Amino acid sequence: MEIINRLSRMSAISAKLLSSDVQIGLVPTMGVIHPGHVSLIEAARKMTDLVVVSIFVSRMQFHSDEEYLKYPRDFTKDVDLVSQQNVDYVFSPAEEEMFPRDFSTYVQVERFAEKLPGIPQPAYLRGMTTTVLKMIHIVRPSFLFLGLKDALRGAILRKMIRDLNLGTEVVVTPVARHPSGLAYGTRNYFLTEPEKAAAAVIYRSLKAAEEAIAHGERQAKKLIKEITRVLASEPMARLEYAFVADPETLEPVNKLHGTVLIGVGARIGANELNDSLLAETPAE
Amino acid sequence: MEIINRLSRMSAISAKLLSSDVQIGLVPTMGVIHPGHVSLIEAARKMTDLVVVSIFVSRMQFHSDEEYLKYPRDFTKDVDLVSQQNVDYVFSPAEEEMFPRDFSTYVQVERFAEKLPGIPQPAYLRGMTTTVLKMIHIVRPSFLFLGLKDALRGAILRKMIRDLNLGTEVVVTPVARHPSGLAYGTRNYFLTEPEKAAAAVIYRSLKAAEEAIAHGERQAKKLIKEITRVLASEPMARLEYAFVADPETLEPVNKLHGTVLIGVGARIGANELNDSLLAETPAE
Repeated sequence: MEIINRLSRMSAISAKLLSSDVQIGLVPTMGVIHPGHVSLIEAARKMTDLVVVSIFVSRMQFHSDEEYLKYPRDFTKDVDLVSQQNVDYVFSPAEEEMFPRDFSTYVQVERFAEKLPGIPQPAYLRGMTTTVLKMIHIVRPSFLFLGLKDALRGAILRKMIRDLNLGTEVVVTPVARHPSGLAYGTRNYFLTEPEKAAAAVIYRSLKAAEEAIAHGERQAKKLIKEITRVLASEPMARLEYAFVADPETLEPVNKLHGTVLIGVGARIGANELNDSLLAETPAE
Repeated sequence: MEIINRLSRMSAISAKLLSSDVQIGLVPTMGVIHPGHVSLIEAARKMTDLVVVSIFVSRMQFHSDEEYLKYPRDFTKDVDLVSQQNVDYVFSPAEEEMFPRDFSTYVQVERFAEKLPGIPQPAYLRGMTTTVLKMIHIVRPSFLFLGLKDALRGAILRKMIRDLNLGTEVVVTPVARHPSGLAYGTRNYFLTEPEKAAAAVIYRSLKAAEEAIAHGERQAKKLIKEITRVLASEPMARLEYAFVADPETLEPVNKLHGTVLIGVGARIGANELNDSLLAETPAE
C-alpha cells in the first residue's frame, strides 16, 4: 500500500492505470476510518482491479470553521486501519493543493431533492459535489463506493455524474451496523456510551417502518408516524426529519410502490445522526 | 471521417482510445465552419494523434431563445468543409441528449475576470463552462483547441480545468484573418459586404495599440484611447469595450510589462464582434 499526498502523483498513476485498462475503485472518506468504510473497501476489492481510499477533510462540507476544526483527525490510526485491508493506494492530498487560495470553480446540482426534508444546505451540497468531482478527475475511478446510510449523497452524486457525462458509476452498499443496529458513521466518534445505546433507536424506527410495510401499510405518512412514535420512546433522541422517497429521484413518495428509500435524521445529545433503509413494497 | 451523434458511442470510442494511449485533440465548434476552425483543426492535427471536431449549438450560450433560433445551422455544409480536412470524428450530439429535460447540474467559475469590461454575463459563462466540461468528459481530449480571438473563453476554461484537476490542456492558436484583417468568426455570417469592410477597423485598432507599444507606450489607458480613436474613424463601427489584461488571470493591467492581452469588442451594424491580440512589452 502506498500513501500519496501529491495531486500530480495521483493523477499520473491513475492516467497510467487507465491506459493499461485497469478499473479503479474509489472509496472517498474524511478519515475516522470505521467498519462502514471497511465494508466499502471490501466491496471495492470485489468489483475492481485496484482500490484507492481517499482521506480528505473538505472544509466546504462543514457549516462553520469551528465545526471543521473540531473534526477528529488521526491520520496514523486511519492509515493503520486501512493498511489491514487489501488497499492499493491511500490518497490524502493537502488542503492547499486541493483548494488553493484562488480556487473558485464550483459544480452544483440544482432543482433536485429540494422538497425532501433533511436535504443539506446548498452551500454544503455544492462543497460535496465539487470535492467529489475533483476526486473523480484526479483518481478516475470506474466505481465510486458509498454506503446506503448516505443515500442522499449517493443520489445527488449519481445525478451529477449523469448530467455531466462522467464515466464513473456510484455503487451504494448496505449499511454496516453495530450489533445494536447503530449504523457506523464518523459522527459516532462524538457519542458517549449511553448516547450510543440510545442511538440504536434510529435503526429500530426504520425497522418498525419496514415491518409496517410488511403488514400492508402503503401510506408514507403512516410510516413517518410510526418512525416518530418509536423515536419518541427514547428520551435522549429527538427526531429531526423522516422521509419516504424514490431512491433515484429523491422525490417524496405518498403511496408506496416498488422500492422506496426511508430516511431518518435524529439528534442524540449534541450530535445529528442519520440512517437509511431501502424497503421493497410487496406486490399487491 | 465518421460522424457520431450518440453520446454513448462517442464515450465508448474515447474510452477505448484512452486505453490505447491515443492522444485526442478536440476542436469545439457551434458549426458555421470557417477558416478559423480550419486553422484550429490544423493545429490539432499537428499536436495530437486523433482529431475530433464537435458541432453543437448550446442553447445555454445564447442570451435569448430568439437569438438561439436565428443562429445559422447548415450541418451538411459544415460536414463537407470539415471532411476536406484530416479529421477523424465529427461529434454532433442532439440537444435532448446533451441537455435532457431534467438536466440541472452546472459548473461555474466565480470571482474571475469580473472586473474586465466585455466579460459575458454569468448565465452565458456558466452555459459555456458546463457545455465544455460535458464535452471534455465525453471526448476526453488531451488538448482543447481555441483561437486567440476567444482569449477570454480560453482563460476561463483554463481556470476551470485547473480548479477541477482535469487532465486537458487548452491550446490557444493565433487568430485566422481575412486579408483585410477581419478575424474569421461565426458572427461574420451575419455581416453584409460593406459591414465586413468596415469591421476590418477592429484589427486596425489592435494593430495601432501594438504599434504604440513598440513606440514606447506603457500606459494601458493610452492604448485604449488609441483603440477608441481608430474605431471612431469608421462610421459603421461603435466601440463596446476595450481592455488590456494579464492573459492568464484576466486582471486588468495599468502599466504594461511582459505579455499583455489586448481585447476589443465592437458593434458593426446589429452585430457584436470581438478580436484580441497578444502583445509583448519590449524590455526597458
